[in-house]
Amino acid sequence: MTLGSKIWVNGAVVVKEEAKISATDRGFTLGDGLFETMLWTGKQIRFLDDHLARLTKSAMALGLTMPFEGEAIKAGLEALAQDAQGQTAALRLTLTRGTGPRGLAIADTTTPLLLATIAPFEAPASLATLKTVAIKRNAGAPSARYKTLSYLDNVMALQEARALGGNEAIMLGTTGFVACASSANIVIAYQGQNLTPALDDGALPGIVRGRLLAAGVVKEANVDAQMMAHCTNCALTNALMSVRSVGAIDGRILADQGDFISRLKATL
Amino acid sequence: MTLGSKIWVNGAVVVKEEAKISATDRGFTLGDGLFETMLWTGKQIRFLDDHLARLTKSAMALGLTMPFEGEAIKAGLEALAQDAQGQTAALRLTLTRGTGPRGLAIADTTTPLLLATIAPFEAPASLATLKTVAIKRNAGAPSARYKTLSYLDNVMALQEARALGGNEAIMLGTTGFVACASSANIVIAYQGQNLTPALDDGALPGIVRGRLLAAGVVKEANVDAQMMAHCTNCALTNALMSVRSVGAIDGRILADQGDFISRLKATL
Repeated sequence: MTLGSKIWVNGAVVVKEEAKISATDRGFTLGDGLFETMLWTGKQIRFLDDHLARLTKSAMALGLTMPFEGEAIKAGLEALAQDAQGQTAALRLTLTRGTGPRGLAIADTTTPLLLATIAPFEAPASLATLKTVAIKRNAGAPSARYKTLSYLDNVMALQEARALGGNEAIMLGTTGFVACASSANIVIAYQGQNLTPALDDGALPGIVRGRLLAAGVVKEANVDAQMMAHCTNCALTNALMSVRSVGAIDGRILADQGDFISRLKATL
Repeated sequence: MTLGSKIWVNGAVVVKEEAKISATDRGFTLGDGLFETMLWTGKQIRFLDDHLARLTKSAMALGLTMPFEGEAIKAGLEALAQDAQGQTAALRLTLTRGTGPRGLAIADTTTPLLLATIAPFEAPASLATLKTVAIKRNAGAPSARYKTLSYLDNVMALQEARALGGNEAIMLGTTGFVACASSANIVIAYQGQNLTPALDDGALPGIVRGRLLAAGVVKEANVDAQMMAHCTNCALTNALMSVRSVGAIDGRILADQGDFISRLKATL
């Protein structure tokens, strides 16, 4: 079975082509939903409890109901992962508000949709080259506070970074401080401290970011352009890559940072 | 046939339940797409050329390809509208980047998805009661400049307005000036002029808004909270409602504004 040919939809594993997403599902029509991207290590789902806790908390904030308990979701994800045959893979959980009448107003009767997909994944071997882009994160808004399906600004931010010759974006928040990359958080070493941009500046509350903060090896801060220009080390973090070394920030080459990356990874 | 039981997908009218949206369509996974909402008057699609022009222009800006010409799209929309039997209805066109590999990066090989749905629509008989909400529009970002599927901030802004006792939101842009309502533009009469918030403040470039500007009866301006608090008249505009009278702004009752509404409508 090709990895990704099956998906899990509201409790059942089905062949992908048979899974029908309604054209009136609000996840499709309005980006009205959430997602989690998780690493299948070949043996287990890394940080699964953290992912489910974030999804549950975000769902409550948006008034979305989780239609399954954690154990049922875990069983579904693991059923999909069987086709990965010991290889690493990316698991994705998507929760939407389900189908509803036309318009933005949320009906009392919507039934949420929860589905899971899997795709091959290998951590990129290359260094990240960051370019600061013009598209900003909407600091304080639901689309920045939660990992929502309304992800287009990040899609276009990555496009902008690629057009500038990079492979990831530095997105500022609408506060003017650095928020995060298009699909990762940012950690810098600056004046002897490891810092990561603040949630209030539009940073996504990433799982690895949360672990590094909880371990006390990274502090939250308002990170500005000047700090990015003078930091001694820089890494990207997300659930799939764990910690990825940054090779250049807006054209400034960073020196070898093996120790910096190793120390961050060691705390996970 | 119940109105809405059929949809038009990439060139063919099918029964809604048979239309399969892929679980890996980027419109669904990342809000990576656009939409238009149009009025079927019972006889014709109002402002169809304006809608198609906006969709085409927005698609170009996002690097999306329109898979059909205007005439084919019009024929599809009119085929759906036959079930409306002379009644008004809401037609919606949705364009997505189509399915693609996991991740944000846009593959060269994506095939866009274009679909149309129809739903019953009657213009609301009640006045709009506006409440200023905390959720802001991301001024300058693609999600604010274009009518994209990444619409969650607006969904939650409407929820916030309803929780405050209103039926529509006044959303500020991240510039601090007024942008628009959750699904309409705003026009105010202030010191003898009809003004509408600027695109640079996060206003969506609405079709009716564009017509009023082109007719010279409304001017674009940076509209602030003080102007909302002291305007003598206020209306919401969008393609479905045309011009809707506002009865109250943050609890301040507006006097009868029949002439104001009539004058705006007369220019469309």
